[in-house]
Amino acid sequence: MSSSVLAMSMSVDGYIAAPNDNPSNPGGDGFSRLHEWGFDPDRQTFRTSGPGGEVMAEILATGAVVSGRRTAEQANHWGGDHHGDGKTPAFVLSHRPPDPSVANYPLVKYVTDGIESAMAQAKAAAGDRNVHVIGAYTAQRAIEAGVLDEVLIHQIPVLLGGGRRLFEVLPSRVELEIIRVIDTPDATHIRYRILR
Amino acid sequence: MSSSVLAMSMSVDGYIAAPNDNPSNPGGDGFSRLHEWGFDPDRQTFRTSGPGGEVMAEILATGAVVSGRRTAEQANHWGGDHHGDGKTPAFVLSHRPPDPSVANYPLVKYVTDGIESAMAQAKAAAGDRNVHVIGAYTAQRAIEAGVLDEVLIHQIPVLLGGGRRLFEVLPSRVELEIIRVIDTPDATHIRYRILR
Repeated sequence: MSSSVLAMSMSVDGYIAAPNDNPSNPGGDGFSRLHEWGFDPDRQTFRTSGPGGEVMAEILATGAVVSGRRTAEQANHWGGDHHGDGKTPAFVLSHRPPDPSVANYPLVKYVTDGIESAMAQAKAAAGDRNVHVIGAYTAQRAIEAGVLDEVLIHQIPVLLGGGRRLFEVLPSRVELEIIRVIDTPDATHIRYRILR
Repeated sequence: MSSSVLAMSMSVDGYIAAPNDNPSNPGGDGFSRLHEWGFDPDRQTFRTSGPGGEVMAEILATGAVVSGRRTAEQANHWGGDHHGDGKTPAFVLSHRPPDPSVANYPLVKYVTDGIESAMAQAKAAAGDRNVHVIGAYTAQRAIEAGVLDEVLIHQIPVLLGGGRRLFEVLPSRVELEIIRVIDTPDATHIRYRILR
């Protein structure tokens, strides 16, 4: 059965974006520090070999993406193709219609009627593959709505000291089960199942 | 060479105390959730066997404790004997003199002249053994003062949803090096060296 998996790179102090995160400086000062494990800045490509390669390959094997609008816009909608495979759709959660330029990206679909709808559409598109979920706001809405199945944290060995946190206040405690830990020098990848 | 090691149990969302943490409810609602891996609530003792036993044995092998006042007072100064071995001193960082009752605890020593002094006294007492550091406020002061060598996070598979965070804002980024990961069903114990 297909799972929705929030996958985020997070500093040890809980930040997913560095200080001074704004539209002209997406992700904040030195944002790339959190993504070195999976993204080669020199070659501008995902790493699919080496210590983080197994984890990145797993992400790229998902069948759909659910993202928040902020995350999508900061990444320029991934050039219209998150996975770079020309076929995996990305469902972007927003209260407002997209910028007109998004019409050039047939794989990017805005969803304005809530996280349950976005997740249902993504699961339908993914079939028996998992759904890759990104974005702090989206994660919190998905947890609250009970439509998030797993959390994969790429715990990066750095204290950013400030920025945007992955987890803000939630309405209640959520128990998790550790289902896998991958220990590499660049990151500790911990996969949790959300218990309900 | 002896190291100062901050060792704290933390939820995946970064909390070390649960919501409604106050003197009459120390650690907040369900605080013990974060400590089950290392403390047996039925027997009221540290676990020294089982999956978390190796980590707890390491903590109990340290030669001195440095703690914040809040942490110490909430734990009733550990009955005067943090390790329960009748000999390991605990240095409590505070701006004010201790409550008079602390005079009954010869192993508990208040330090009012700053974290550098507390750490120096603890390292001298510990000899070639490590120093066990606890408390969020103390941790941040020690990082800022450059007197913390390692961070050992017991990452607990739960989202508490609120409470007190281990890491608030720091003045600058701090790079860490992963030196060991112990993967158990109850917690992921990640040990980092602070790089300077």
